[in-house]
Amino acid sequence: MRQLRVNQGSGYGLAMGQQMTNLALTHAPSGPKALLFDQSVGWFALELANRLNIKHTLGLAAGEGCKTLEVFGQCLSWLAQAALPRNTTLYVVGGGTLTDLGGFVAASYLRGIGLISFPTSTLAMVDASVGGKTGLNLPEGKNLVGAFYPAQAVYIDLTTLDTLPQPLFKEGLVEAFKHGLISGDTRLLQLDDLAPTWSGLEDYLWNAVHVKVKIVEADPFEQGVRKHLNLGHTLGHALEGVTGHRISHGHAVAYGLVYAALLGQAVGGMDLLPVVQKLLNWLKPQPLPPIAFDQLLPFLSRDKKKVGQSLSWVVPLAPGRLEVRPVEDKVLLEVYGRFADHLSQHGLWLR
Amino acid sequence: MRQLRVNQGSGYGLAMGQQMTNLALTHAPSGPKALLFDQSVGWFALELANRLNIKHTLGLAAGEGCKTLEVFGQCLSWLAQAALPRNTTLYVVGGGTLTDLGGFVAASYLRGIGLISFPTSTLAMVDASVGGKTGLNLPEGKNLVGAFYPAQAVYIDLTTLDTLPQPLFKEGLVEAFKHGLISGDTRLLQLDDLAPTWSGLEDYLWNAVHVKVKIVEADPFEQGVRKHLNLGHTLGHALEGVTGHRISHGHAVAYGLVYAALLGQAVGGMDLLPVVQKLLNWLKPQPLPPIAFDQLLPFLSRDKKKVGQSLSWVVPLAPGRLEVRPVEDKVLLEVYGRFADHLSQHGLWLR
Repeated sequence: MRQLRVNQGSGYGLAMGQQMTNLALTHAPSGPKALLFDQSVGWFALELANRLNIKHTLGLAAGEGCKTLEVFGQCLSWLAQAALPRNTTLYVVGGGTLTDLGGFVAASYLRGIGLISFPTSTLAMVDASVGGKTGLNLPEGKNLVGAFYPAQAVYIDLTTLDTLPQPLFKEGLVEAFKHGLISGDTRLLQLDDLAPTWSGLEDYLWNAVHVKVKIVEADPFEQGVRKHLNLGHTLGHALEGVTGHRISHGHAVAYGLVYAALLGQAVGGMDLLPVVQKLLNWLKPQPLPPIAFDQLLPFLSRDKKKVGQSLSWVVPLAPGRLEVRPVEDKVLLEVYGRFADHLSQHGLWLR
Repeated sequence: MRQLRVNQGSGYGLAMGQQMTNLALTHAPSGPKALLFDQSVGWFALELANRLNIKHTLGLAAGEGCKTLEVFGQCLSWLAQAALPRNTTLYVVGGGTLTDLGGFVAASYLRGIGLISFPTSTLAMVDASVGGKTGLNLPEGKNLVGAFYPAQAVYIDLTTLDTLPQPLFKEGLVEAFKHGLISGDTRLLQLDDLAPTWSGLEDYLWNAVHVKVKIVEADPFEQGVRKHLNLGHTLGHALEGVTGHRISHGHAVAYGLVYAALLGQAVGGMDLLPVVQKLLNWLKPQPLPPIAFDQLLPFLSRDKKKVGQSLSWVVPLAPGRLEVRPVEDKVLLEVYGRFADHLSQHGLWLR
């Protein structure tokens, strides 16, 4: 088992290993408890509920469909109907969509109750679990509503990966790969062995979490360096939006990283395309339908990283060296052409 | 004009007087602006929008009906549809329901944008405007959802009282009277002259705001002394709930103060009933329908001040001396009988 303390807000513990329910029991806060869980890891959630003697539980089908104001309202009413008071702790067990939802529920119910998180997907483990970003989607775009609300403790139990579908296992690690590009930790750019059974998996995940922790500690409210975590997400979110989420988040971000690599080269950075192509080879993402750049514009302008009139892009110049900057429309369009060409050559751009 | 700085969070200015739009213009932050306003003070909001050149405006019918997740979603979509970025400032002009809603919108949109508040009712001026409590109602109860999110600036423009209906003018001052009981500032317990035209009104309101500021500064997250502000609200909220909000908030709190006064006497405090009766004489609240104590129980148990298994009451022992404590059911019931008797004698308990 590994543990560290995240120095964000009043600080919180993060632990990774097996049998985290034992640790969670040892460190359980006093007061009432409720458990919100992703039905796909119901087996794990029920074990936790038993160990901690949590009676008030709610299982949801995870996915972007649960990050709505409607489901948010259902969760709040579920807490209110049991008249749970302010000293309640909400345990959240699930992937990134559920921890995003559950975090905002905990942030908002009675203006904030306790939150303890059990991320159960690779995405949630290496990304969503740390840093306190919670959020919901609006019809107008993803993650447009939410709060910065760190959990009091994060338990990463690797046994939950046993039932994570292989596509989700891979998609989540796109964020770990992204952390490698951001930090320059090149171990995170080596994907060949990455599988649930690989003996090096725990090390790999721990290194990825570590990158996120360092960035969040340096910039808790995304005023500066934390924006780097959006690498690949500006185009990624727009691809998700324009396809009505028929492209998964992990695949969309992988494509976003390809675009970012080309953008970096266009503004004088090193050629990162071969590095990112290794990600595509390993991931084998769903091919993109042909999308004109103009179709992306409404989704780009709504991106949260837009400040004032110009949209900022996270541009990688080399592993560990990034710039957050506006990019001229002409360059964006030109690079988009190269992006489409590159994907076409690899059979990832449908005609 | 009067100004003070509230030492809560990173601190914010509060100003009271006439022609606050001038001051707001001088101190306007850079970046995009949007304006959410209560239609009943549309005349004032439009003047503000003109002065500050705010193009993106939304007028709502204020009242508890706007403190729903549905209207919350409409406001968020209104911001998202204009693709307003993180450095946006939301100006909110209205009474307490609108500033509660608008504050939570600002807290949640893109995980938090700027907020500048123009409270336009006496309630919002002396109570809701300071302290950063924002919130919505659920079907299960009032203010069960929200965030602590102080405005960056609060401008109390007394000209907005010109169009405040007389019943609302009076109801809001129930909170000012409550501040007198809490602080022991007996000037706030003198109501006879209180009218929109009274020359002492600005002094009175400023003194009331001052009580709130001091309490919020001492206890920003309601861990201790801020709970005193809930004086009269435990029973008040339950009366609102059981009558389906046919009793207004101000009247409900006034009745709650009567009950609290009797409770204080029952546990050994001084007899505050004559003091609170002066409030009833001045307010002339809507009489209560006969309500059995049992009917209130489901609404009491959902009160946010409940921690663990026992409900805490704010009990006044004398002006400026309060206790937050559980009270035995037997005492609660007994005092409720005296409460009903007292109101009957004054024609405020319907048969």
